[in-house]
Amino acid sequence: MAAITFTPTLPLVPRKAPHVLTIAGSDSGGGAGIQADLKTIEAFGCYGSSVLTGLTAQNTKGVQAVHAVPTDFVIKQLQSVVEDEAPVAIKLGMLTSATTIRALAQYLPTIEKAIVVLDPVMISTSGHYLLPDDAVEALDDLFPFVTVLTPNIPEAIRLAGFKGEVGGLEDMLKLAKDTQAKTAAKTVLLKGGHAVISRDEVLRYKGQYEIVWEEGDDEDDTVEVLSEYKSLTQVGAERDYVVDILVTGTEVVALFVGKKVISSSTHGTGCTLSSAIASSYAIRKGNDVPAGGDVKILKRAISYTQSAIASAFPFGHGHGPLNHAHLSTRRALPPPTRHNPHPFLTHLIQSNLPLWKSYVRHPFVVQLGNGSLPRECFEHYIKQDYHYLRHYARAHALGAYKASSFTDITAFSEIALHIARESEMHVSYCAQFGISREDLMAAPESAPCAAYARYVIDIGTQGDILDLYMAVASCLVGYGEVGLWLKKQVKEEKAVLEGNLYRRWMEDYSGPEFLTAVHKGIENLERRIAQNPPSEEHLARLTSIWHECVRLESRFWDMGLYKLL
Amino acid sequence: MAAITFTPTLPLVPRKAPHVLTIAGSDSGGGAGIQADLKTIEAFGCYGSSVLTGLTAQNTKGVQAVHAVPTDFVIKQLQSVVEDEAPVAIKLGMLTSATTIRALAQYLPTIEKAIVVLDPVMISTSGHYLLPDDAVEALDDLFPFVTVLTPNIPEAIRLAGFKGEVGGLEDMLKLAKDTQAKTAAKTVLLKGGHAVISRDEVLRYKGQYEIVWEEGDDEDDTVEVLSEYKSLTQVGAERDYVVDILVTGTEVVALFVGKKVISSSTHGTGCTLSSAIASSYAIRKGNDVPAGGDVKILKRAISYTQSAIASAFPFGHGHGPLNHAHLSTRRALPPPTRHNPHPFLTHLIQSNLPLWKSYVRHPFVVQLGNGSLPRECFEHYIKQDYHYLRHYARAHALGAYKASSFTDITAFSEIALHIARESEMHVSYCAQFGISREDLMAAPESAPCAAYARYVIDIGTQGDILDLYMAVASCLVGYGEVGLWLKKQVKEEKAVLEGNLYRRWMEDYSGPEFLTAVHKGIENLERRIAQNPPSEEHLARLTSIWHECVRLESRFWDMGLYKLL
Repeated sequence: MAAITFTPTLPLVPRKAPHVLTIAGSDSGGGAGIQADLKTIEAFGCYGSSVLTGLTAQNTKGVQAVHAVPTDFVIKQLQSVVEDEAPVAIKLGMLTSATTIRALAQYLPTIEKAIVVLDPVMISTSGHYLLPDDAVEALDDLFPFVTVLTPNIPEAIRLAGFKGEVGGLEDMLKLAKDTQAKTAAKTVLLKGGHAVISRDEVLRYKGQYEIVWEEGDDEDDTVEVLSEYKSLTQVGAERDYVVDILVTGTEVVALFVGKKVISSSTHGTGCTLSSAIASSYAIRKGNDVPAGGDVKILKRAISYTQSAIASAFPFGHGHGPLNHAHLSTRRALPPPTRHNPHPFLTHLIQSNLPLWKSYVRHPFVVQLGNGSLPRECFEHYIKQDYHYLRHYARAHALGAYKASSFTDITAFSEIALHIARESEMHVSYCAQFGISREDLMAAPESAPCAAYARYVIDIGTQGDILDLYMAVASCLVGYGEVGLWLKKQVKEEKAVLEGNLYRRWMEDYSGPEFLTAVHKGIENLERRIAQNPPSEEHLARLTSIWHECVRLESRFWDMGLYKLL
Repeated sequence: MAAITFTPTLPLVPRKAPHVLTIAGSDSGGGAGIQADLKTIEAFGCYGSSVLTGLTAQNTKGVQAVHAVPTDFVIKQLQSVVEDEAPVAIKLGMLTSATTIRALAQYLPTIEKAIVVLDPVMISTSGHYLLPDDAVEALDDLFPFVTVLTPNIPEAIRLAGFKGEVGGLEDMLKLAKDTQAKTAAKTVLLKGGHAVISRDEVLRYKGQYEIVWEEGDDEDDTVEVLSEYKSLTQVGAERDYVVDILVTGTEVVALFVGKKVISSSTHGTGCTLSSAIASSYAIRKGNDVPAGGDVKILKRAISYTQSAIASAFPFGHGHGPLNHAHLSTRRALPPPTRHNPHPFLTHLIQSNLPLWKSYVRHPFVVQLGNGSLPRECFEHYIKQDYHYLRHYARAHALGAYKASSFTDITAFSEIALHIARESEMHVSYCAQFGISREDLMAAPESAPCAAYARYVIDIGTQGDILDLYMAVASCLVGYGEVGLWLKKQVKEEKAVLEGNLYRRWMEDYSGPEFLTAVHKGIENLERRIAQNPPSEEHLARLTSIWHECVRLESRFWDMGLYKLL
């Protein structure tokens, strides 16, 4: 008998996550600083490392104490990180002192190609001054290496040496351009959270600048059903806008416009946005850095931050943290790895191991293996199996109907065809038992056969293509299991091949052709699940289909053994 | 006309995440220390805060430098965190010095009810000593407050003052009990990663202790198809075991048994496991702490850590970090919030705004509103709409077939019934235009009507119940939109009601009954999507169904306007 040669095709090593480094302070409360950065980087699917410039004893009410990290230790951390694995993007936050800033300005140019986002943190949300005056001056040394500078209005006023009031959008536009001119940063994103802007004020600049509206909004503001819902329910009916201004080179490139989120959960907003920008650049496709700010990349970071505020839950007694995990859900299953290439099938089997064993170690199978199974039991079984095969072929034809691509249509149709061809082998096999084609056709479908076969067809019709895959899986996998187990039993002399009336049946289901189909089927299932991970709820449905099919398979053996009609 | 009274039922504030605090050192490289802790806590859906005891300049190759944080600043951080929001669970890692340990032993008892997990970090994976001798002695002061102590074998030897070799499982069992006896910690989990144990050695204790096997394994080791796959492909075929021993009080409670993962990505394994245990306790249902270790809670943490090692990607030049995010996936949509209660519908509409507008601002609609629509266009449209309604009712009946609960069966059946009843109103409305029931029945189904109606039925048959929801949504939402927009147009004197031949049509679709149905339908969609968040791939399918339906709706107006057959 030919050996199986089988090359695994599952993706067994996860894609490497882009490395994003944050250089900033620690917020013990976990809502700002490197804690907010690491949570944000994680939420974007990146790998976060961190160089600490200072520690704070801090919570949602304010900063209670600060511990500066010596500059040489900051640089030691930076060397440890960068020399081991270069970051794709770097976020700079609270830099604590002028000497640290100057040391960073020396080191940064040695890191090749990294995107650098500088959040010029000077004052915490709670009003605590975080950067002494000489350190603010020292920032000048850093600006030449900065890809994106993200000041808020007070910080921009300080950086630009801006005179006069910032009352409306016109002032903000001037402030943004002045800040860029003064710092010469490649790109400046002026964060407008400190100002309230009206819709009309924004629309005044329509045509002049690209206006990037928050999801669910646009220049016409015209999804009437949603507006009505909001006005009826007093939910999401805010009318004030926040505008962030993107300046690249000396030009205003875009205005990001969103309705002001009314929330006290704003602690760490600046940290979150700047690390979101760094991460958003890190996950971009291709390595190109657009000449200026890339509107789409920035939009993704702004949207993330805005919905992290909007989805925050209450925490602490002051300005609570954002919900950094609002875009993350927990996979119901781990991905396939070299250690466990079959997390899905493993889950299915382990989720009810006694049930699985009642199928694949059924007395019918044991007696078949040791040759003690009464011939009339097998004959009854094999006649019903012919009915089952017909429905099993139909189920695959239904799969072809359920499919959306020619690849799937082909795969399902080929299996349907294969089963149809196999049915002829079934007929010739039955002939050895003196069962004619007419006998096969004439045998009424037993209740256990109908229950199982029609369940598969019904699930396939009721659900989607994955439900159908589930419904046909336990037959394929279980018969492979039975074939292999009987082969092992023969080796251990607990089952016999020589002189066994059912030898051919045993050899067929442990043969290379069938087992190759089994392995391909298993890989196909695992790949589908890994590519499109089910939610807990969805996994529960798939598992319940599996359980029902396994139970019905077990009843199918019962039918043979007890000659049930 | 009655006003709509509508109470929103969407969950608009996310559930609060349990607060888990880590007190440990910082690893600049991001793979161990509070960085690993925060990533783990995030992966378990908890909120992480952190008190830093020391900083390291560290990477995958080793620890290059250490900066101790003064004890009083450690306590200041702790006060800031705890006084603002008490943690549910606390993980203690690298505690740096005897004075810090003693100060923590003073403060910890003031925190009520928190689970405390102590990872007695003494030596880094890379061999760096992280705790001086006097600090090890000081740990005695902490033990009384510890719920779970998690030493590895060398640490346990040191803590227990164990004499002699630890060669096999028997020695380990003694070591685990000795460690508990010496420390008097409520629960000790002895991590067996430094020893290699055979399957037979484990089976010797069957019946004596609870043996908790890793997923995909059991005492019989008998899923033949998976074993064969592994032996054929050399994937996951490890034969050496790692055993973690759980001791509660003076008794061994369970052995956690898993195949040794062959990997160099083990940097931060201890940090990860201990914060996983703290998080696993934090997310347990109910506040009860089992008298000893809770096997299920610990199993969840051990499994997470094991698959985080197995799914790690290469990073750095030494022992790489674990893949903390292996169980997380990115939601394709944010959850509904008070700021944006309709993220799903907003996404659908914004994903192709011009297409949506081509439907809801179609010239047919504009002309209908201002009364200029030729009567024969409307008559053609209304006859076809009668056909469409019949298929629309059938689609809802199909929904009842696709449903899995009586709630859904009832909801779909009621809509089918409602449409059937409405069809009679349609007949009487048509009578006003001189169109009899016979005319309606006799009108052949036009191509645009058939294309749309049969598409809805086909998608409903091909896909699952959510696909069907998608296919029937654009008609409901779009007609509500048209009704509301025309009402607004009337107010702005761009459309007219008085003397408009189509007045009743306009009033029906902007009336409270229809709009209540629209809002309920929208909430239903949003709730389904929020409860069972789609993957990117699934969202793309749902979006493509929406687009196709919107396009076909637009063709349906074309049909009316240009009297297409």
